[in-house]
Amino acid sequence: MSNFGVRRLRVVNPYEVAFREARSAVGASEVLKNAEEYPTIADAVADCSLVVGTTTLRSRERQHPMHRLEDGVRRIRTTLAKQTVAILFGSEKVGLSNVDLSHCHWLMHIPTREEHPSMNLGQAVAVCLYEIARNEKVQASANKDLLAAAGELERLTEMLLKTLHESGYFEQSTASNELKIRRLVRRLNLLADDAELMLGMLRQILWKIGPTEK
Amino acid sequence: MSNFGVRRLRVVNPYEVAFREARSAVGASEVLKNAEEYPTIADAVADCSLVVGTTTLRSRERQHPMHRLEDGVRRIRTTLAKQTVAILFGSEKVGLSNVDLSHCHWLMHIPTREEHPSMNLGQAVAVCLYEIARNEKVQASANKDLLAAAGELERLTEMLLKTLHESGYFEQSTASNELKIRRLVRRLNLLADDAELMLGMLRQILWKIGPTEK
Repeated sequence: MSNFGVRRLRVVNPYEVAFREARSAVGASEVLKNAEEYPTIADAVADCSLVVGTTTLRSRERQHPMHRLEDGVRRIRTTLAKQTVAILFGSEKVGLSNVDLSHCHWLMHIPTREEHPSMNLGQAVAVCLYEIARNEKVQASANKDLLAAAGELERLTEMLLKTLHESGYFEQSTASNELKIRRLVRRLNLLADDAELMLGMLRQILWKIGPTEK
Repeated sequence: MSNFGVRRLRVVNPYEVAFREARSAVGASEVLKNAEEYPTIADAVADCSLVVGTTTLRSRERQHPMHRLEDGVRRIRTTLAKQTVAILFGSEKVGLSNVDLSHCHWLMHIPTREEHPSMNLGQAVAVCLYEIARNEKVQASANKDLLAAAGELERLTEMLLKTLHESGYFEQSTASNELKIRRLVRRLNLLADDAELMLGMLRQILWKIGPTEK
């Protein structure tokens, strides 16, 4: 919850000993410290305009509309812009009962593999909140790294050709060899810094190979 | 993993006692039972064509391109259509080291709240795999070219290191030089054919430089 900026945890009828210990533990998160306790679901969601239950697809409760997480979250966002939304999670072992679910406007499920639909509670919460925090519009991340300029790539191409020729990899610097190497260097999509780095390496290698006697 | 249909778990250098107990526990999942064990990351990812590291935005490692999860997964899907992809997670406590990250082509991070970026390992895995399983119009990859496998890249790394050492570019093959070169080779995103081509070039150059007298 804290990872995704969701701060209001409401706990319904918890096992008192465990709850008290968890809240007072050293390093307990702010979310847990500030958790509110309610005797019933009705009390816990009284001020919420939308109550969404989480369940697996297998759940027998079919009195409610059921949405896949992606679609459910789209609906949640619409309400969230102006009103409070509750997402209801059941206990690790038994999930939400039919009575619990009767407080919900609709249900959503995480799209899991059919043979293994039941998720760990903490992981289910993380996935649901991630989907809410998820940014639909993220485009290819703006890469701040600069690509090498064509002139730099051409210097690298020439240096590599020379090195390959001097090392005997190419018998001759033919036009077709030159094309082959120029294309290879372009396919690398080198960053400016990397092109410079490789140029330095080739310079040293070429110096080591030395001028060949012909 | 099992919830989202991801079945191949590879564990690198695990704490033997805990690992053995977890695998043989009653009710251990198929994923855990079939987990493969490797001594090093290089061994674990040798047959993978794309190795993606997971880290928080805060991470100091800035030698790699970093993508948000949504964008990273888009890239992963493109490769996943034809080749094997590894997603690397660090330990709960310390995450991935710089040496670990040097095996990665690029990094991705889950978009968390800035003040609380560090996630529980199990939850981070669930969120990443959910994003991969998430329903989106999977873009038909236009790229028919196969990326080089990690094992091939590691051979190239070793050959380049040796060449640079023999040529005098590096005085010594230090660990930091090795990291630098390993990261450079991953940043190139080499196609399988190009990796082979470059390996052939280096082999010839190294032969030409010849064994140095020391």
